Amino acid sequence: MKKKQINAIEVAKLANVSQSTVSRVFTPGAKVSPRTQKRVLEAAQKIGYRPNALARGLITNKTNIIGLVMGNIQNPFYPEILDEFTKSLYEKGYHVLFFHTKNDAITQDEVSQFLEYNVEGVIVTDVLLSSNVVSKLSTHDIPIILFNRYTQDSTCHSVCCDNYSAGMKIGEYLFKQGHQKFTYITGRTNTSTSRDRERGFAEFLLQKGIKPVIEEGDYTYEAGYTVAMRVLKNRNRPDAIFCANDIVALGVIDAAKILGISIPNELSIVGFDDISMASWPPYSLTTWQQPVKEMIEATINMLLNTVDGEATKPQSLLFSGKLLERKSVKLLKNS
Amino acid sequence: MKKKQINAIEVAKLANVSQSTVSRVFTPGAKVSPRTQKRVLEAAQKIGYRPNALARGLITNKTNIIGLVMGNIQNPFYPEILDEFTKSLYEKGYHVLFFHTKNDAITQDEVSQFLEYNVEGVIVTDVLLSSNVVSKLSTHDIPIILFNRYTQDSTCHSVCCDNYSAGMKIGEYLFKQGHQKFTYITGRTNTSTSRDRERGFAEFLLQKGIKPVIEEGDYTYEAGYTVAMRVLKNRNRPDAIFCANDIVALGVIDAAKILGISIPNELSIVGFDDISMASWPPYSLTTWQQPVKEMIEATINMLLNTVDGEATKPQSLLFSGKLLERKSVKLLKNS
Repeated sequence: MKKKQINAIEVAKLANVSQSTVSRVFTPGAKVSPRTQKRVLEAAQKIGYRPNALARGLITNKTNIIGLVMGNIQNPFYPEILDEFTKSLYEKGYHVLFFHTKNDAITQDEVSQFLEYNVEGVIVTDVLLSSNVVSKLSTHDIPIILFNRYTQDSTCHSVCCDNYSAGMKIGEYLFKQGHQKFTYITGRTNTSTSRDRERGFAEFLLQKGIKPVIEEGDYTYEAGYTVAMRVLKNRNRPDAIFCANDIVALGVIDAAKILGISIPNELSIVGFDDISMASWPPYSLTTWQQPVKEMIEATINMLLNTVDGEATKPQSLLFSGKLLERKSVKLLKNS
Repeated sequence: MKKKQINAIEVAKLANVSQSTVSRVFTPGAKVSPRTQKRVLEAAQKIGYRPNALARGLITNKTNIIGLVMGNIQNPFYPEILDEFTKSLYEKGYHVLFFHTKNDAITQDEVSQFLEYNVEGVIVTDVLLSSNVVSKLSTHDIPIILFNRYTQDSTCHSVCCDNYSAGMKIGEYLFKQGHQKFTYITGRTNTSTSRDRERGFAEFLLQKGIKPVIEEGDYTYEAGYTVAMRVLKNRNRPDAIFCANDIVALGVIDAAKILGISIPNELSIVGFDDISMASWPPYSLTTWQQPVKEMIEATINMLLNTVDGEATKPQSLLFSGKLLERKSVKLLKNS
């Protein structure tokens, strides 16, 4: 089915006006008599020439398209995020042009695509962003918001969970239950989320004179499983493991089960995110719940305010979230 | 940051031509002298008036945007699909306008959005499609392909796994291992995927004089868990359960563990999809692997051929896939 090339020229023929008259009808501010306008609009409607969203976008620079960039969609946390963003943006009349990237950082090519499609704003979830990219988008007046990440140099808006203070509170919680040997399994080490969770956790414990062991992971089930298989075979194994996210924690739990280590009696585990699997009975994972809905609402409001012209300095919004106690942490008796 | 309203009028001022001349420069087939064209293009470049993807889309009807509609993104099978589609389409120069719908079927509102954004084609994964919607899109020459679903009346192209014959082969496989009491846990019963898997499974077993028990599920972990908790407490419980998808099967495995029923010694379980969790050690689920990459490649080729003008009758492509044996099925000794 070859697409019909319905364009201004055909509309002009049918309305018996010049092609430039048709252009004027669809250009705000251009002069055209009401009678001519009516004739052109009727002709356009008759043959299916639609002054559609893209046409309006060209004329007004409003496409109602938001670019959403996501990397690790295999981590169940992110499909849940995508779901919420798409729904909330749709309710506000916006659509998501979805970019999936295997790269750690946004590329120039992706930036070109944002410009090509005239997106009104960009939301970036779990991908790094150079100040170069931020400034290029800013030159074109395309606001960008980091979700669940921030840049060290604070060149753009961001919405995050307060990972540092969550890490502290998790350290405090495990310490108060009487644990003594702590391990943190990181996510990808170049991410602000993993680093901040580690920093808060380690700083609290250091205040108590305890130095946690840091093991490198990469936010995957496989990493949690592999690290745990190695670490838990040591005589001097940890009695509490804090994992950079839930999916890592599930890998640790499964490794512990295979090694015959009882959770929580012999080993306590805490995750981060509260993905749906965390509540499945065989895991019943104690975890930090990010207030995802509020974070997404704030991101969208921030973005749309910026799109609508409120010039503001880069803002960083932090949300607390809360510890969700399930059954993967051994509690002090009589506490 | 208020977006600068860079439009044809400003370009016209700078190039010292009329606004209709600017329009002509950006309209293929319209008359304009090479010298004027050069002046207009230079002015456009200078002030940042970009004849971008949307502009080209208006002129040529080619936006390179494909609408992708997805429902149950919480089932890990679908993020993997979204990932593949986005990547493959991007390699071919197309972008994904992502539609997430909580509805069972595509609504008129969503169809309006496809038209508004001038998408070149629509891919629909796990959502129902009325012939009404198909015919409306067809009127506007927007091809649509169903992925992992088909319509009873074959009004549009579809790409599916051959669920019926996969169901048969799973029935045969379980029967050959000596199982005698079979249960099928359905997905949402209004989906062709669940119905065809059931039909193949039941037809094979009926040939052997066995009538499987059908239990209703809805493609979720919770449904598998709940159904298994009820069914496995019966004295006359099944010795083999085929689940409409993997996530249901994981729920069944977890319920069996809690009830102290050993898998595979006392109960065999087969899933469908081969999501990444199926290979996790505590599950090690035997399942039917859909050839996802080939199916996606075929979907995109079919769509782009149609976009490029090859008029064809609705086609249904079926892919076989294969049984992936792990450790959730008890095998006949000495076989």
